[in-house]
Amino acid sequence: MILIGEAINGLQPGIRQAILSRDKEVIRNLARKQVNAGAAFLDVSTGTAWPKPAEIMVWLIATVQEAVEVPISVNSRRLDVIEAGLRVCRNPVMINAATGEKEKIPLYMDLALRHKADLICLTMDEQGIPPHAVGRISIAKRIMDFSEQYGFPRNRIYIDPVLLPLKFFQAQGPIVLEAILGIAREKDAPHVIVGISNASQGMKDRALVNRTFLAMAMACGLDAIICDVLDAELTATIAAAEVILERRPYSDQYARESKKASAGASS
Amino acid sequence: MILIGEAINGLQPGIRQAILSRDKEVIRNLARKQVNAGAAFLDVSTGTAWPKPAEIMVWLIATVQEAVEVPISVNSRRLDVIEAGLRVCRNPVMINAATGEKEKIPLYMDLALRHKADLICLTMDEQGIPPHAVGRISIAKRIMDFSEQYGFPRNRIYIDPVLLPLKFFQAQGPIVLEAILGIAREKDAPHVIVGISNASQGMKDRALVNRTFLAMAMACGLDAIICDVLDAELTATIAAAEVILERRPYSDQYARESKKASAGASS
Repeated sequence: MILIGEAINGLQPGIRQAILSRDKEVIRNLARKQVNAGAAFLDVSTGTAWPKPAEIMVWLIATVQEAVEVPISVNSRRLDVIEAGLRVCRNPVMINAATGEKEKIPLYMDLALRHKADLICLTMDEQGIPPHAVGRISIAKRIMDFSEQYGFPRNRIYIDPVLLPLKFFQAQGPIVLEAILGIAREKDAPHVIVGISNASQGMKDRALVNRTFLAMAMACGLDAIICDVLDAELTATIAAAEVILERRPYSDQYARESKKASAGASS
Repeated sequence: MILIGEAINGLQPGIRQAILSRDKEVIRNLARKQVNAGAAFLDVSTGTAWPKPAEIMVWLIATVQEAVEVPISVNSRRLDVIEAGLRVCRNPVMINAATGEKEKIPLYMDLALRHKADLICLTMDEQGIPPHAVGRISIAKRIMDFSEQYGFPRNRIYIDPVLLPLKFFQAQGPIVLEAILGIAREKDAPHVIVGISNASQGMKDRALVNRTFLAMAMACGLDAIICDVLDAELTATIAAAEVILERRPYSDQYARESKKASAGASS
């Protein structure tokens, strides 16, 4: 399982404050803690509403790279912000995220190829997010067809079937599980990823929903996750699921070795 | 999700002692506690090595029925013990378990039909337990073919793909998940059930393995479980998984309502 730590996000009040006061130690500390907890990538997002988001992105990435060596997942909706981030990243790196829009896929693939970046692609297009699994699987196939044309390595594509908050869109649960199963069972399947924390927005017992969904999604073929890697019960669940899927040999320490094993799995 | 409480089992030292001293209150109390925790059925097993197991079975069932109204799952490897148990059971009732052996399926189906019993069938036959999912799925199909011939209602069959202890047979994890997926996606699929506690025998953090496997199996189509219903984290995981699968409407009390909702689901 490839763990991507989500904590460095300008939407979080603590991070927003650190950006405003250019407090590097807050950022560096959170980078170190996430890597110690098993993150193979660190997602970096400025959040919204900065007058110069590209500058914030560059500062955040530079600061993270002062503390840790793991690759960065450069997270923005704006291509110029992603590009600014990529320029200061050490390789390898990840772009979070492209969509399945026909006009945009080539731009993102081109950018990812130039920067030797992995690429997260959301299963949404000009029409939005398809309301059924089959529509998301078909956007995933379109993305894979493009990757074929571009000579983009399949194992550097991460398809994200877009998990919306279950409290408001409860049908998303079975739809996304079905989409994961469908995509993961394609021939030469790409990685399949979701952002888990979004799913439980506004729910009670969020951590329970997150770790239960994660176990279910792993059974369907999910192999990467953007999550709160500091949630010890979540990483213990990942460890148990990997033992159950026979991706990690059983030892009596399995639930306490999540860090090392997860980091190893991504390398 | 249909929960079957496993606690009344003569292999458990407390139950063994209660049988020896004919202490009815121990049995009745455990029956009540399991029903309060959401059990839709109570499994009753004498354990092994009694000189007259049929008598023990009859005593156990009569005692359980003094305390609660839920149907009994009569659990024995011996047909005569099952038959003795069935005779004192109030309907409805469940037989745990038949196998896929060609000589034996008719005996069990006939018995179940006569007693209007649900029937758990293990995916094992004369050759033992198939080492791959495809073999277990094909035994499940054979059982379903028999049920067709016998006019045995499909929704009263529970196929159990036989989960062996993962510590010693780690490949069982992916094999059983694949078997569940295959059986649950058959046309007019029967129920699919496993006994979860057996899986984690001898492992550390058994409860973590049990609830993680259960969430994964539910994603693959499992809809019944023989388990420790008194494990509150397990029943909370079931509640969360039901919300995720949209089988239970979300409410802020979802994780605390597992009892009522689970009992309702089975009726």
